[in-house]
Amino acid sequence: MRTGLFITVEGGEGAGKSSAINAITNHVAAKGYKVVSTREPGGINIAEQIRAVILDRSNTAMDGRTEALLYAAARRQHLAEKVIPALQAGKAVICDRFIDSSLAYQGYARGLGIDAVFEINQFAIGDWMPDLTIYMDVRPEIGLARIQADQGREVNRLDVESMAFHERVREGYRQVMERFPNRVVQVDAEQTMDNVLEQIERILNQKVHRRV
Amino acid sequence: MRTGLFITVEGGEGAGKSSAINAITNHVAAKGYKVVSTREPGGINIAEQIRAVILDRSNTAMDGRTEALLYAAARRQHLAEKVIPALQAGKAVICDRFIDSSLAYQGYARGLGIDAVFEINQFAIGDWMPDLTIYMDVRPEIGLARIQADQGREVNRLDVESMAFHERVREGYRQVMERFPNRVVQVDAEQTMDNVLEQIERILNQKVHRRV
Repeated sequence: MRTGLFITVEGGEGAGKSSAINAITNHVAAKGYKVVSTREPGGINIAEQIRAVILDRSNTAMDGRTEALLYAAARRQHLAEKVIPALQAGKAVICDRFIDSSLAYQGYARGLGIDAVFEINQFAIGDWMPDLTIYMDVRPEIGLARIQADQGREVNRLDVESMAFHERVREGYRQVMERFPNRVVQVDAEQTMDNVLEQIERILNQKVHRRV
Repeated sequence: MRTGLFITVEGGEGAGKSSAINAITNHVAAKGYKVVSTREPGGINIAEQIRAVILDRSNTAMDGRTEALLYAAARRQHLAEKVIPALQAGKAVICDRFIDSSLAYQGYARGLGIDAVFEINQFAIGDWMPDLTIYMDVRPEIGLARIQADQGREVNRLDVESMAFHERVREGYRQVMERFPNRVVQVDAEQTMDNVLEQIERILNQKVHRRV
């Protein structure tokens, strides 16, 4: 039985997902939910082991499809061990990135195909698609400038991809939104922080209804 | 470009796959092929790492879908690094178990669904389905009795599953054959060794044509 609330947050680099997650967490907690805030692999031992294979720098021969299957496997385990039990207990789960990251990054930007990557993720997820996905939209040049300005944030492998790659990721998210217009809601993440938080608040007021 | 020959051998425990693989290897070598005889993970480093996650005995929380995705990931990597290059070089590749094992064991016997497991494996395999699959059919009670009689063979985890499980595997293979009647050819593996080898020889004479 499914009684909880499953919200995922998506977006390119420097889109401000962390601030969004904080705002969402506060909002749904105020609505009476116990909240689990997580991201893959989420401290799940098997998912961490899978992640270690993906990120092993000596695995230069890693095929793109192998990588997509490994991400889907780690996603399944994190879902099975952490997300589903929390939802079944009636909690709200806020997850930093989920299926749509695979669709935008691997399906579209890496060229494996959104349909194909969706199929293997559908196998991984089954009936547990998010109830709501907040997509933080920002032009790559803005997002990457924010990261460079943020001294506290470490630059990761994806940050240093070419600008063309980040443009493809954004186009990938655009196509994901077209495919799931009811589930995915876009936030204009180039506005001021106050304005962004207002947009998120408005979306949540429409979509999240439980009160204590 | 695909110029080689890709043959897989399938069957339950004690069906005599090893003898079949020897016979096939000799036959196609005599037809002028260079032969690569392999089985997953086939010494491919990334596939071995994935296999280690699957087989880690401490991973008792492993979800069935996670496992199926990991098998598909290991399959993809073995295919990409070893099978495809050999086929592209015009060689014959004889592989001990391939997609149909996942369909019969995980799709049918473990109850994940043949269609669902086929989809993730189709993602893993792409256009590189086997040209020919030899399915060694044997009743579980006969196959398992052979294994117990063979002192040299170590009994593995699957050997000690319940008889009902091995019956389900056989039914799974039967359904796989119905789905791929042109690719999968059944051998009655309960006959004498001479008779079994004759059946295989007959199939290969129909299906394998290249001569030096």
